[in-house]
Amino acid sequence: MAKELTPRSENYSQWYNDLVVKADLAENSAVRGCMVIKPYGYAIWEKMQAELDRMFKETGHVNAYFPLFIPKSFFSKEADHVEGFAKECAVVTHYRLKNDENGKGVVVDPDAKLEEELIVRPTSETIIWNTYKNWIQSYRDLPLLINQWANVVRWEMRTRLFLRTAEFLWQEGHTAHATKQEAVEETERMVNVYGEFAEKFMAVPVIKGAKSANERFAGALETYTIEALMQDGKALQSGTSHFLGQNFAKAFDVRFTNREGKEDYVWATSWGVSTRLMGALIMAHSDDNGLVLPPKLAPFEVVIVPIYRKDEQLAAINDKVDEIIDKLKARGISVKYDNADTKKPGWKFAEYELKGVPVRLALGPRDLENGTVEVARRDTLEKNSVSLDNIDQYVEDLLDEIQNNIFQKAYDFRAASTTKVDSYDEFKEVLKNKGGFILAHWDGTSETEQKIKEDTKATIRCIPFEGEKEEGKCMVTGKPSSQRVIFALAY
Amino acid sequence: MAKELTPRSENYSQWYNDLVVKADLAENSAVRGCMVIKPYGYAIWEKMQAELDRMFKETGHVNAYFPLFIPKSFFSKEADHVEGFAKECAVVTHYRLKNDENGKGVVVDPDAKLEEELIVRPTSETIIWNTYKNWIQSYRDLPLLINQWANVVRWEMRTRLFLRTAEFLWQEGHTAHATKQEAVEETERMVNVYGEFAEKFMAVPVIKGAKSANERFAGALETYTIEALMQDGKALQSGTSHFLGQNFAKAFDVRFTNREGKEDYVWATSWGVSTRLMGALIMAHSDDNGLVLPPKLAPFEVVIVPIYRKDEQLAAINDKVDEIIDKLKARGISVKYDNADTKKPGWKFAEYELKGVPVRLALGPRDLENGTVEVARRDTLEKNSVSLDNIDQYVEDLLDEIQNNIFQKAYDFRAASTTKVDSYDEFKEVLKNKGGFILAHWDGTSETEQKIKEDTKATIRCIPFEGEKEEGKCMVTGKPSSQRVIFALAY
Repeated sequence: MAKELTPRSENYSQWYNDLVVKADLAENSAVRGCMVIKPYGYAIWEKMQAELDRMFKETGHVNAYFPLFIPKSFFSKEADHVEGFAKECAVVTHYRLKNDENGKGVVVDPDAKLEEELIVRPTSETIIWNTYKNWIQSYRDLPLLINQWANVVRWEMRTRLFLRTAEFLWQEGHTAHATKQEAVEETERMVNVYGEFAEKFMAVPVIKGAKSANERFAGALETYTIEALMQDGKALQSGTSHFLGQNFAKAFDVRFTNREGKEDYVWATSWGVSTRLMGALIMAHSDDNGLVLPPKLAPFEVVIVPIYRKDEQLAAINDKVDEIIDKLKARGISVKYDNADTKKPGWKFAEYELKGVPVRLALGPRDLENGTVEVARRDTLEKNSVSLDNIDQYVEDLLDEIQNNIFQKAYDFRAASTTKVDSYDEFKEVLKNKGGFILAHWDGTSETEQKIKEDTKATIRCIPFEGEKEEGKCMVTGKPSSQRVIFALAY
Repeated sequence: MAKELTPRSENYSQWYNDLVVKADLAENSAVRGCMVIKPYGYAIWEKMQAELDRMFKETGHVNAYFPLFIPKSFFSKEADHVEGFAKECAVVTHYRLKNDENGKGVVVDPDAKLEEELIVRPTSETIIWNTYKNWIQSYRDLPLLINQWANVVRWEMRTRLFLRTAEFLWQEGHTAHATKQEAVEETERMVNVYGEFAEKFMAVPVIKGAKSANERFAGALETYTIEALMQDGKALQSGTSHFLGQNFAKAFDVRFTNREGKEDYVWATSWGVSTRLMGALIMAHSDDNGLVLPPKLAPFEVVIVPIYRKDEQLAAINDKVDEIIDKLKARGISVKYDNADTKKPGWKFAEYELKGVPVRLALGPRDLENGTVEVARRDTLEKNSVSLDNIDQYVEDLLDEIQNNIFQKAYDFRAASTTKVDSYDEFKEVLKNKGGFILAHWDGTSETEQKIKEDTKATIRCIPFEGEKEEGKCMVTGKPSSQRVIFALAY
């Protein structure tokens, strides 16, 4: 190995940190809690963005951009929202620096104090609904189906690359509707878009469901979520879609004239996914050799490495590789040819394994003679000698197979890591010894949920939409329960 | 007209403000100096981003993301840079709010004061070169060709939508090279990329050249620029590319081992364009009826409006329009069909004229009978009745013609607005009565440039790369000059 990773079995958390840094995905910056997303990591995020953006537009949404700063007073307008978001945040108090009188650099100019402090947005409901107020008069102005790609800041005390950072990148959809039903449908539509994206592109199986009241977004009447399971048996909330009712419309006085000519408050949703998805992607599939990327999100799907001793051998290989690249590109397959002479093949093999490139082709003089190429797949680490004749078709099929296999592996792992329990003792025992998703009955109260969290640190990840709706009795209180909910330890 | 604009001849500045707001491009927000970019405006920006991003990648660049915040002390490390950038900026001093003890909203928690203040990035050279320090050891690590799409904040006192806002969106390229020559070539490459983008996509002719020392980026040894001429005869700096020498490498101690095994400081460039380009696009082409968009950057190139009285007429038109849309889309032409029954055709005509849609098709019952359609082009406002048989080919050719015509019109305007002068009196007279670009001899000193600026407000827009390099005498001091430079009043 070019760069050794801590094995998962030894220290999962260290393995993750090692991997993010050594695979050139991201690193900590000089600013506490803020990360640098390196080009290889950013290329994955760009692929995610492109697919999500396409899906948002296909469902009728458009993009816009709202200010980075929010006047402090805006947060006080929605009572729940202020509790959730206006606490740990970056506060801009001044707008000018000046030269230090002692000649040492610059200092804040005390004369340039803002009348009202500005908050670096932790989420944009308030500034957006303050703007929507001027855009909406009549039902003809509705729905507004707007998304924003942006950076946000939440002053987290304990940060981890991608999973929890002070600044992160995300998209936030903010929609406005004439009726409750339309807004509820939109909330459902977007959690389904997130679920489809996670499963089809990230190859991460997710459970869709509703959050309990305790875990809802601050200001929402309902929060829907997609929950993924990581290899250490912990859940990762990967995307949320909120039905906000008329809370923000009331807070910012956004009224409209409906079809019946009556005045009403506008109905709202918001929904978002962030660079946290990078953490889910990394942890769901990767192994002790490095990243394992689903082909649909890999910066390049195929890497080709030449094996040679003499320059004339390389020349012959280069010619053949040009042909292969043309054939692969004609099928829309992204490919990198690494014939740099500064590194040996063994080093390159390890490097691209670490970086999770789905398929590696290695081509030497003997391959040229035989009309073959060595094909290695990253997910299973299998190698095969394959005829060059239909290599493009072979690689295309293999990429599909890898995409499916990665998903299936994660799906099987989740199935094996999901346990039904019927008593609180069993719950604690499974949580301690096995982890994973635990399906249990719960009486629906915040008190019981809180007790379980205090006892075990486990939280209700969601009340799942799908699956059997079997009635039973709460494992803690024995009170009636209409369906099992999903508990887990979570990131 | 649905929404009246102030005519340009009456008040150009008001015309611009009216247009930006009424064409739904952007508006002022509740935060001083920060704008909301509305969906229609953002769709144009997305088109710009897509083309620029493609051009950056074709020239070997990759994207990454660096922190929004920069520690205050970083600005002091490069002496010129601190003067230029660490003054009017947003300063984060605290990281927490708390409930007001009087129960009125939230207040800044005095216990949550940062040890070192953070500056919201006005540009990212300092944080990026602090990061590059750890990425570069050897010439093998070079070049680094990295771009970032981001928001930045400069606390401008007088703001105008798109042209000068406290927060704006931009891209900033930051490259690192082993040799001076490579860095200079990169600086030139990128100003050429900007020039090509402006002319081919924005249809805005630009003059490429070097900035005088006075007008250089703070910390640069050379600044190259593209300068465009607006319809009011004022110049608009539309993109800049900076050769930074080893200034930032020295400030952040970024050394590397070169091919000869010797240690040296790394050579740097940076380059950027911003949402200011939206201002250039709007002001270069639009007229008293509204926006005029080049087809290559229009959110949709064609709008189709049905003309009907009865529902069965609309049904027949809808069928025919479906055919037309399929044919246009097959040629990669973006099209919107507006058959909303809440607005009349006349209102729609004015609305899409205001929004600068390049081609409008109007289709009524008589057109169906005759197999024709009315085609209106936005740039010349001409209308024609055209056979439906080859409408797709006709529209495709027309879009090319419009793209070329818009460019040619701006090119001709610039030619007519460019004046050679040989005396300072003539200079002042042309500046006052005609405006535009003025080609004059200058002795190359900052003193003379400063005097001209104080006398007339005109600045040297650039020392052009192209055109005759005729020698002469400075119009102010009579000292020798090796070529004419371009003066203008500027945004």
